[in-house]
Amino acid sequence: MSREVVILRIGHRPERDQRVTTHVGLTARALGAKGMYLAASDKGVVQSIADVADRWGGEFFCEDNVKWRTCIKEWKAASGVVVHLTMYGLNLPDIIGEIRPHDKILVIVGAEKVPGEIYGLADFNVAVTGQPHSEISSLALFLDHFFSGNELRNEFPGAHIRIVPTKAGKQTEEL
Amino acid sequence: MSREVVILRIGHRPERDQRVTTHVGLTARALGAKGMYLAASDKGVVQSIADVADRWGGEFFCEDNVKWRTCIKEWKAASGVVVHLTMYGLNLPDIIGEIRPHDKILVIVGAEKVPGEIYGLADFNVAVTGQPHSEISSLALFLDHFFSGNELRNEFPGAHIRIVPTKAGKQTEEL
Repeated sequence: MSREVVILRIGHRPERDQRVTTHVGLTARALGAKGMYLAASDKGVVQSIADVADRWGGEFFCEDNVKWRTCIKEWKAASGVVVHLTMYGLNLPDIIGEIRPHDKILVIVGAEKVPGEIYGLADFNVAVTGQPHSEISSLALFLDHFFSGNELRNEFPGAHIRIVPTKAGKQTEEL
Repeated sequence: MSREVVILRIGHRPERDQRVTTHVGLTARALGAKGMYLAASDKGVVQSIADVADRWGGEFFCEDNVKWRTCIKEWKAASGVVVHLTMYGLNLPDIIGEIRPHDKILVIVGAEKVPGEIYGLADFNVAVTGQPHSEISSLALFLDHFFSGNELRNEFPGAHIRIVPTKAGKQTEEL
């Protein structure tokens, strides 16, 4: 599969959001995205994600200090499509069919407040239900619906560790 | 739909996990669960979730100070099935077909460390990929696969506010 999905995380506040943003990045990686641009300076997040990617395989990147306006502009200039996850957008099942044919997607994942400009810059404003919940669950459902569930069987080449799925208990394999 | 899904959140540490556990509860509510038992004392989480449920409708409950062993025992005694979300379990797409026919499910969502006993008590240990990511995204994908995506169109009766889905911008309706 050559589809390219990358996350742009905006509104991240280094102290308060470190854990949630790390969960956003790890969710992105586990569910088939190629990387995450972080529109803030936070080496802690970058390092946590790099550690997981190194140990668990695959080629996920995480880059901080990204300027979001430039990032969006360059993505569009390279014929990419921009999806903004927001509870105010069109409901996922109503719009995913229009997004799925595209193969280069930037997914904007905001923290609490998002600049109004983003709504206009996005090609698609997508809600995962119009209910308040979590940007982590929104991203997970977006990716799963975009990849039609196939991402749940992705392999991560170059891993040093792998879980052996078991009915009860914990089994890992060092590689 | 009369299926009953309830979350049991264990391993919650009041300071560190407040935000993640609140996201777990809100995700559960938005995606069709009936409530969350919290195996810890944290009125902050209970209040945040109650505030959302009151304003956005539906009948989601959140109860803290729940003893997890008793909770699991009573659930099973009432013919309920227990699902434990863990990266060590069987992969979601391989096992969801066996879980879907059941209509009373307790979903155990652990924080970092989970007592080994849980693996044996659960009827199903389910992994959402065997990769490290987030209990929030695992729960979201479990619920979406369990309800086959139909939960994304749930209504929340009694709401004081509702979002009007729009292509770009923010539109709400006071009820």
